[in-house]
Formats: sequence, structure tokens, C-alpha cells
Amino acid sequence: MLGLTAVIATEVIWAVQSTLRSFDLAHLAHVELFTPKPEESLRFFTEIMSLTVSGRQGQSVYLRAWDDYEHHTLKLTESKVAGMGHFAYRATSPEGLEHRVAVIENAGYGKGWTKGDLGHGPAYAFTTCDGHPMEIYYETEWYQAPPELKPALKNQAQRFPARGVNVRRLDHMNLLCSDVGELRHFMENVLGLRTTEMIVLDSGKEAGAWVTTNNKSYDCAFTLDHYGAKGRFHHVTYAIDSREEMLRAADIFLEAGVHIETGPHKHAIQQTFFLYVYEPGGNRVEVANAGARLVLAPDWQPVVWTEAERKKGQAWGLKTIETFHTHGTPPIEQYTGPLTK
Amino acid sequence: MLGLTAVIATEVIWAVQSTLRSFDLAHLAHVELFTPKPEESLRFFTEIMSLTVSGRQGQSVYLRAWDDYEHHTLKLTESKVAGMGHFAYRATSPEGLEHRVAVIENAGYGKGWTKGDLGHGPAYAFTTCDGHPMEIYYETEWYQAPPELKPALKNQAQRFPARGVNVRRLDHMNLLCSDVGELRHFMENVLGLRTTEMIVLDSGKEAGAWVTTNNKSYDCAFTLDHYGAKGRFHHVTYAIDSREEMLRAADIFLEAGVHIETGPHKHAIQQTFFLYVYEPGGNRVEVANAGARLVLAPDWQPVVWTEAERKKGQAWGLKTIETFHTHGTPPIEQYTGPLTK
Amino acid sequence: MLGLTAVIATEVIWAVQSTLRSFDLAHLAHVELFTPKPEESLRFFTEIMSLTVSGRQGQSVYLRAWDDYEHHTLKLTESKVAGMGHFAYRATSPEGLEHRVAVIENAGYGKGWTKGDLGHGPAYAFTTCDGHPMEIYYETEWYQAPPELKPALKNQAQRFPARGVNVRRLDHMNLLCSDVGELRHFMENVLGLRTTEMIVLDSGKEAGAWVTTNNKSYDCAFTLDHYGAKGRFHHVTYAIDSREEMLRAADIFLEAGVHIETGPHKHAIQQTFFLYVYEPGGNRVEVANAGARLVLAPDWQPVVWTEAERKKGQAWGLKTIETFHTHGTPPIEQYTGPLTK
Amino acid sequence: MLGLTAVIATEVIWAVQSTLRSFDLAHLAHVELFTPKPEESLRFFTEIMSLTVSGRQGQSVYLRAWDDYEHHTLKLTESKVAGMGHFAYRATSPEGLEHRVAVIENAGYGKGWTKGDLGHGPAYAFTTCDGHPMEIYYETEWYQAPPELKPALKNQAQRFPARGVNVRRLDHMNLLCSDVGELRHFMENVLGLRTTEMIVLDSGKEAGAWVTTNNKSYDCAFTLDHYGAKGRFHHVTYAIDSREEMLRAADIFLEAGVHIETGPHKHAIQQTFFLYVYEPGGNRVEVANAGARLVLAPDWQPVVWTEAERKKGQAWGLKTIETFHTHGTPPIEQYTGPLTK
Repeated sequence: MLGLTAVIATEVIWAVQSTLRSFDLAHLAHVELFTPKPEESLRFFTEIMSLTVSGRQGQSVYLRAWDDYEHHTLKLTESKVAGMGHFAYRATSPEGLEHRVAVIENAGYGKGWTKGDLGHGPAYAFTTCDGHPMEIYYETEWYQAPPELKPALKNQAQRFPARGVNVRRLDHMNLLCSDVGELRHFMENVLGLRTTEMIVLDSGKEAGAWVTTNNKSYDCAFTLDHYGAKGRFHHVTYAIDSREEMLRAADIFLEAGVHIETGPHKHAIQQTFFLYVYEPGGNRVEVANAGARLVLAPDWQPVVWTEAERKKGQAWGLKTIETFHTHGTPPIEQYTGPLTK
Repeated sequence: MLGLTAVIATEVIWAVQSTLRSFDLAHLAHVELFTPKPEESLRFFTEIMSLTVSGRQGQSVYLRAWDDYEHHTLKLTESKVAGMGHFAYRATSPEGLEHRVAVIENAGYGKGWTKGDLGHGPAYAFTTCDGHPMEIYYETEWYQAPPELKPALKNQAQRFPARGVNVRRLDHMNLLCSDVGELRHFMENVLGLRTTEMIVLDSGKEAGAWVTTNNKSYDCAFTLDHYGAKGRFHHVTYAIDSREEMLRAADIFLEAGVHIETGPHKHAIQQTFFLYVYEPGGNRVEVANAGARLVLAPDWQPVVWTEAERKKGQAWGLKTIETFHTHGTPPIEQYTGPLTK
Repeated sequence: MLGLTAVIATEVIWAVQSTLRSFDLAHLAHVELFTPKPEESLRFFTEIMSLTVSGRQGQSVYLRAWDDYEHHTLKLTESKVAGMGHFAYRATSPEGLEHRVAVIENAGYGKGWTKGDLGHGPAYAFTTCDGHPMEIYYETEWYQAPPELKPALKNQAQRFPARGVNVRRLDHMNLLCSDVGELRHFMENVLGLRTTEMIVLDSGKEAGAWVTTNNKSYDCAFTLDHYGAKGRFHHVTYAIDSREEMLRAADIFLEAGVHIETGPHKHAIQQTFFLYVYEPGGNRVEVANAGARLVLAPDWQPVVWTEAERKKGQAWGLKTIETFHTHGTPPIEQYTGPLTK
Repeated sequence: MLGLTAVIATEVIWAVQSTLRSFDLAHLAHVELFTPKPEESLRFFTEIMSLTVSGRQGQSVYLRAWDDYEHHTLKLTESKVAGMGHFAYRATSPEGLEHRVAVIENAGYGKGWTKGDLGHGPAYAFTTCDGHPMEIYYETEWYQAPPELKPALKNQAQRFPARGVNVRRLDHMNLLCSDVGELRHFMENVLGLRTTEMIVLDSGKEAGAWVTTNNKSYDCAFTLDHYGAKGRFHHVTYAIDSREEMLRAADIFLEAGVHIETGPHKHAIQQTFFLYVYEPGGNRVEVANAGARLVLAPDWQPVVWTEAERKKGQAWGLKTIETFHTHGTPPIEQYTGPLTK
């Protein structure tokens, strides 16, 4: 229908320019959590968080929320120490994957290709500049619900569980790091993500940043590690449809004896309605709701929060509790990497 | 930091390929509504829908919701007959705009550049294949709230109004058209949008389609015009943060004597929680909430609904009411264009 | 502390007067439903409605919601035909029970004392003037949760189930009857309930009434039987905490293949947010939320709805669907009693 | 219809007994707040809290929420010092009023009859044993909405305001007192209220109690005054329909610069979802939602919370903030009464 050849000339120039700001990565895809208490952790994620087991292999169980379209969004792996095994983004296309791998390799952070895993094809492994293990891949297995989990509406991946807190989909990752500014540059320049909000201390040092690869206002965040450790994990977040269901989730965590660290309350940054708990293995898990918030503007400028503004606490005045700044996994007592301060 | 020159070679090939499926358009930006009752319509949009006036020019008033980042998302223009004046998308970049204009011109739908309007720069005007007036532009004026409308949290465009139903942002447009299949091809091939859901009758004829240019599961939809008219308007939708606030919106519409056509209820298609009313000028307006629903998969395949599935009614069984299929603006009695059946 | 004897004189006169409008009855206590599909019905009430089995005896299973304080609020009994076995109110005191029994006996509706049932002591059985079987009793067994169902907060009867739609407590009963005016007089004069809202047709004939024995705006309602049958059952209602959870309940019913008759929507009368389904045995069941609505005024005058007002449909304009007026249990085809028209 | 004379004999005996545990009082009716900043306080209550002015007299403005059925529930009076002027209960009947006055007089707390006030008839004034000024009355003026405030549904007192946080009705009062046990005995024995929950310290001393005169689980609460002062005021609470609207209320308070003391969060005691702010005059005001919680059991036994249980904080673990224990009105610096410790 369109005379496409007629516009090829301008295309080439435009394309080269646009590539540099393109999003090769489509979205946060999954996270692997290490747990020293695999049975309790599995029970937490299936019975309380309402995830479905979609596979098992070796010491790992693969899990998914009812609106996740891929095979899994959580890989739970038995381990001596809690922490994050790796997290992965899915690329936008085979070409996007190839391009992004080239950028990562060129930047010197690459580890090499893996054969893939249950549910997805070949993945390229690398680390962030702070040492967090990551992967990117394109080929994936779209989840096909078995008959007993078929949803009533065909535009939904899986039947609504109606059990536990009913998280909907993987939402975002939160990392601890030894240098926020460096990691932000890595996320922007090596991974091509864009920064939507950040904290800059009076000294000029960055204390936190929120980055995204799509219209969610963030799918990855990172803050300064209190101990100066590298590559630690802060939390993984699953989204819930409404704030009312988040309040109910707090009741359900309470009834189940799950440790509620803080919330429900509203973050000033990103305005996320949050609720943080610890899963039995010790990793922090968040359930969150962001209402209808999206970043649709292509030229969004990062919102910069000052030290004074952060002192006001969360949106409605709640003071941030101490452990939120200090607890990460692996726990600092079991951390074996280098301390930067 | 990155040796960018080293990857240029693969870039060019990749870029040319990717361009064809790129999203030059960032998001639905604004809609112009014609109203024969300008004062009542303005009162409806400001007092009930909670929009803020951001400008006036000629016979038009410019309005915005509290989370809209641009100058306005609604242009309300006095007119003899109700209907839609035009609707606009903002481009992702100047280059994206240029590219998209080239494609539209090449496809033969272009009308030419305008100088722009209050709040945005030069816009390229054209029509859809069904005759709906559209524009695309890139340069825009980021809204700066006056002191009395400054929000408490700096990552928000404007103070929460706390008046009326408090819609958050422009969400999507819905058109009537004489040929759904043709318009879908136009949206995909000329505008570069992607189709996420559609209705295909037993005859093979398409009866509705939902398209998007970003991670919202749709920002434009169109269904068959009952009368076979071309270029008519079905409704414009503003998003509300929660379903609870939508139920309250229904109370507020009731109290204000606004005609509620149908809802609140949940659409099977797209699973949107909907509420349709008529503004005083006669145009249908929707308030909606989609929970946390997003289309993040880069290779999402359109969900196709059959005639039998549509007969089940809305998600929870509500039968679609007659006027939803017949009422559009301009009202068919005042429609002066060609009827295709 | 108080010189009580000093006020005895005025007490006697006051007490005699007040007795006649006293509430001897504290609240709706339980309902017995007959089901021809006992297993499916039990699965519906436990897995979807989230009730807990608190006892079994003969052909009956006893069930309770998480905030019900008594042993059970639902008795599910196998039967050839669906319908309501009986429903019961708990008296405010032994004296209140005795007094109310005297009034009922005197009015000629009494059947006599039963030994009681699982969970409660001696009950006095009678019928309404339309033939609905009822009981009243005072002695009851406060529910003691077993360890695995102990709640985290001691002011709650039982752990929140986090399974299915999570109904909170029995809310109200709805009856069909052959003569609304007569049944209203019975409810007011024989049972001592007060009428808060009612429908009076243009002919002067009453078409529906809502009565209560406490600050809930109603705990029993009754409308005209479309077929003129006597003593049939319309629905029983369990309360859910929020409207958001009611919307979710609709999803859960849909996923479970439960027939949704109508809703969620808001009744104009009593402003109840309603959702009606049929349990597998054929009885209509409602889940409802009334927000913070209470009738605290001691001299509340019944709100009278006219025929014209009823024609406006439900609060937000939804037309009442046909089966809501015709379906009752026992189904009219299996009804063996007298038809009054 | 009923042979009432036949049951008179048992009536008399029963009535005398029942009187002693009868509820002569129907509900909390209104509160008078003193404010040193009358204009700012009035703006707070009308624009943010959404109350309607229903009268003015002397230095007082009378206000009401949209679901309050009486003339007013708040009387705002200019004064040098913040605090509570008096609070009132409405009696269930003229006889109930007479009876309750006799009990109060007999107990030695009476001050005498007043002519009444705007909106209600003669009231009997007295003080609690701790010195809080109270009144009880029966005759009242049912609110008649002027045309512009007429609701769409006739079973509602007034049009929904759709402005500010939209509180629904007066909910409860909270007092500070020098001796909780003594005040609880007063509330039970002199006013005839019943205690539903209470805090008893390890020493046996009572630290707080929640009492009610109807099926709300409490309409008055009182806790130990940190300074041992007598008769101070802690807060007055208005109910909001849903928790979602409470979260939104927090946004609205934030935007309006209102000091949020703590919340939204859920109390363990009574499970109330709370949000505390200070109105411009300095008085603490709460908005709250209790879901569907009611105390319907006529023989409810008080839930007793221990010191250890209280140390767990609020329901989901939030620690109670310091000012919640110390701030009352009049502020302790302006308090002129006796200190008991």
C-alpha cells in the first residue's frame, strides 16, 4: 500500500540517529532469588503471593503471576545464602538483542551467551558495573494455561487465582549498589534505559535512581548500599491491581505471620503505594500499586529530589524505617564481596 | 564511554529494518470537541470532570487534567453541531515526526502543516482513511502550574483538584467508521500503531479494533458505524486512578443530572472498567480505569473476538445497550457526509 | 453507685410504653438453604464464597463467614427442591425472647419450641403470615477458632480466609411474598422490626419493604411474588468489606463459571452495592456492600418509593433484569403451595 | 391485630428488668469545637472536610456532613483556646431522655436543662466524671436540603459534595482523661453505654476504653491523659465510605498543607482504618473507615488488650507516634485545670 522505497533515503539517516536512543529492551522479564529455606519460600510465593509453579529444574522452581505472559517471572533457587541470582530483561526484537549485546560487550561488561533456561531461548549474561548478574534474551515461550487455569476472558494469560494476595505481574527490581551515579550511567548508556527520578544529596552525590525501558515510570531502581557493599539486592516487586487489595494484602501477611517491614503507605518518589515484607528466605519482597501512572512523554526530564525533600519522609509523612536502609541480601553478615567504604 | 563507532556497521542495517516497526508516535495528545452548548459543556468539563482551563482563543477553551503534562488535552470549540474537531498524537522525536509525515504524505492522506496551536508547535494535519481529522506534532509546551495549582509532590504536573470526579489524564479515543478493516490497516501501516484486540464477525468482516502506540493496551479504538457514516466520533476517555473512584464518579454524575448511558461495568475486550455519559453538547465521554493492565510484550498478537463471544455481553454479563451502537457525533440526523450503506 | 431505687417509679411507666417498640430481636442469625446439589453447593459456599464448615449433622452442613461470631450463619441441607428451610433471628436477651414468643403465639403464628440445633439453644419456630418458616432463640455458642484458624487480631472471630471472594458476615435475607403490606405489618407488629424503606405502587398496593431490627438499614426485605406464590425465597446476602472487593468477586464468579444474574451495580433503594449470582442448587445469593450506611435515628420515617421512581431503574440507571422479578426458590415449576393470583 | 392487652402482665416485669440495660441514648449527635482561628478552621471544615454550613449564631458556625440527618454535627465556636466545648448524644425517645436525665442527676453529675440550640430542642447539660461537658436531648430538626443541595436519591439527606475529602457522617469522639477506669464506669453506669474493647496495663490500670450506644462498635473512646490533666479532648472523627477514599483524603490533606499526624493505617484496636490531622485551630481530627464492622451481638464481651499486645503497634506494625499520646486540646501549655499527676 505504501510506497516505502520512496522514503528509504531519509530513513537511513533518521534510523542511525534514533538507534542511539532506542529501547532495545522491552521490559523486565524475570528475577532469580536464592533462598536458604526453599520450602518455606515456595509456600510463601505460591500460597501467600499467589504465584503458580510453571516448572522445576535442578534446585530451582519457576513461578509466574496470573497476568505474566511469559513462562515465568520468578526463579526460586535453593542456596546457602539469600540474595538475587540474576535478573533479566527481554529484548524488543532479535535485532535489538543483537545490538544491545554489542554495546554491552563493547563496554566490557559481557560474560557471554547461555543456552537459555526453561521458558526462554539463548540469553546473554553480563554484570552491571556494580556486579549485579543480569541477562537479556529475546526468544520466549508464551505461557499456555492448562485447562484448569484457563481464564474466562481470552485476553488474560491465566485464571485469576483468588488465593492469597493475588499479585498480578512482576513490576520492578530494586538494587543496592556502591555507586549510584556510576550505575545510573551504566543503565542509561550501556542498557539504554532512561532515568525518570533520582535523589541527589547536597554534596552532589547521587543516592538513588529510578530507570525504565518502557512507559512504566520505572522497572528498575537502585539506592546506595549502607555498608558500601557491591551488587546486593534490595527487593523485587509484584504489582497488585488496586490499593484496596494492597490493604487487604497487609491483613493477609499479618494473618500468615509474614514480617511486614513497612507500609502500606505512599512513596513520595514515583508515588508508588508500597508494602514491604520479608519472604522466609530473608529476601525483601514488595507488593505495589501505581494507579494509572505512566511516563508517556518521550522527553521526560528526570525529577531530582534533594536531601531536604527526602527528609520529609514518604508522601504522607511516614518516616522511612531504619531497616529499609540497611537490610539487603545477601545479609551483610554473609556478604563476601568487597566493601567500598 | 562506549566505542560507538565500532558498532555503527550493524546499526545501519538494523536501523533500517527496525524503522518500519518503530513507534514514531509517543502517545495520544489531545482531542478537540465541538459543542453547540459551549457554556454548559465547559461547566461539565471543569466542575464535574475536574479539568482546568489552561487557555482560551477564539471560540475555543483549552483544558487539561491534573496529570496531563502538556498544555492541554481537550480543546472545546463552540460549533453548531456536536462532534470531534480533530485529535492529535505527539511524536517521539523531531525525526520521528518527519518520518511519519513522509509516510502519511506518501500514502496520500496528508493535508499539510499548520502553525500549531496554543501549547504546541507546528502540526501536520491529515485525515484517516475514513475521514477523521488528525494531527501530529512534536514541539510542545510542558505545563507549568501557577502557584495556587502547584502540587505538593514535585513529580506531579498539577495539584489534585479534589472537585468533581477528578479525572487523571486523557486516556483514549474511540471512533466510528464505515470500514473497520480499512481503518485498522491505516492505523497500522500509515500511523505505525499496533493492534492489540479486534472483533471479527462470522462473515470475516471486522467490527472493531483497538490500537496503540505505546504500552497502554490501547489509545485509540474504532467500531463500525451503525449507519454506515464516515468519520464520526464515538467517545473520548479520561482515566481515573481507581475503580472505587469510578463508582463514586457515577454518584457524582447522578447528582449533577448528567445522563449516564451505561456502566460502571467491565468490558470483556481490554477489560477496561467503564462509565459512559453524555456531556451537555451531546458528545459521549467515558471515564475509565484499567487497573495495572499494560501490553509490555513486543510481539503481542492481537486477541480476536468472535461474534459468539461478543454475544455474551460485557465481562460480567451486562448486555450492551442499544444507544452504544447507534449514538455518535455528529448525531446521524445532523450528519452531512456520505453514507456507505 | 447509683440510687437506682429512686428512679424505679418512672421506670415502670416508661418501660411499659417502650416495650411495644423495643427490639427484642438483636439481629438476623442464620438461614437454612435447601439444595438438590449438595456437593456442588457446598463447594460453591466454601471455595468461592469462602465460608468455613463448622459442623455437619444428618443431611446438613453448617457454615460461617470469617466475621460471624456465632457457630454458623448458613445451614446447607440436601433436599429434592431448592428453597429456604428456615431463617432465624437471635433475641437480645432471654427476656426479650420470652416476650417476643408471647407476642407471636398471641398473634397465632406459633409452631412451638424446638430443642435447638448445632450451635444454638432452644428455638421457637413459627411462620410469617406468608408462610416463610422462621425461628428465634437466644442461647448461642460463640465460635472458638481452632488453632489454624485463629486470627492475628483478637477482636476478630476467625482468620481472614484469603480464598475466593472472602465474604465477611451474613447481611440480610430477601423473601418473595404474596402480600407485601400484610407481611410488613407482620414484621412490624409481630416481630417488632421497623420499616426503613418501601415501594408503594400508584394503586396504593405495596410492592416491597425493607425492615430492620438494629442499626443496619435493613436485615430483611421482601417483594411481591411475580406468580402470587406464598412463602418463596428470593436471596440471602453476605457482606463484603469494600466495593473494590465486590468488583473482584465478579471476576472470581466469572472465572468459576458461576451464573451472574446482575451487577455489580448500586440499588437506588437502600443504596446497596449489589451482585447477584445463583448457587449450583439454584438459590439466588447476593454479595453486597453498603459502605458506612447505618440508620441511627430512632425516629427514622420510612422512605417511600413511587412507581415512577422505580421506573428509573437502579441508582445509576441500570434496568432491572426480568429474572430478578421472576426467579425464586423453590422454582415456580416445583412450587406446590397455593397461588394467590 | 394483636391482642396486646393479653401480654401486658409479662411486659411489666420484663420491662423493668430490661430498662436497666436499655439504650436510652441513640447515637452521638454533635460536638462543639473551640478554635482560636475561626476563619481558617471554617475553611478547613468546609473546603477540605466538605461539611456544609447549616447555621450561624453568635460566635458559632454550625456544620453538617452529607449523610448526617440532623441540622448539624459540628458547632465551631471562636475561642481563645482550642478544645472541645461540649458533645451531645441524642436520646432514643422522650421517655429515654427523661429516664437518663434522672440517672445522671441521681449520680450527681447534672448541671441542668438548656433551652436547646439551633437545630435541637431542650438539652440536659452535665459533665463526665472527668469534667468533659456533655449534653443529651431528644427533639431535633431533621435536615431539609435546599433545592441546590437536594440529592438525586431520596433516601439520602443531602447531595454528595464532590469537594474535598467528602466525609459522610460524624462517627465518634475521643477523649483524654485522668482516670480511664472511672470514666468507663461512668459511661457504662451513668450513660448506659457498653464497652466493646479496652486496654488494661500489666499493673491492672486501664489505659483506654471504647464504648458504644448502638451497633457501631464504638461511638466514644477515651485514653489516659499523658499529663494527668482532666477533661481534655483527643479528637473527633468523621466517617468516609471507603478506604480508597481515605487514601485519596491523605493526598488532599497533603495538597492543602494540612498537618498529617499519622496514617492512613489500620488500628489493631477496633480495626479502624485511620488518618489523623490537625485542623488550623489545633484540634485533632480523624477521618476513618471501619468497613462493614458492626457489633450486633447483644452479649458482646469487651476485648481486653494487654500491654504486650499494644507494644506490637498498629495492626500492620506501625509504631504509634509520640504526639498521639501527648497532644490534646486545650494544649497542655494552655490548660488551666487540675493535674492529677
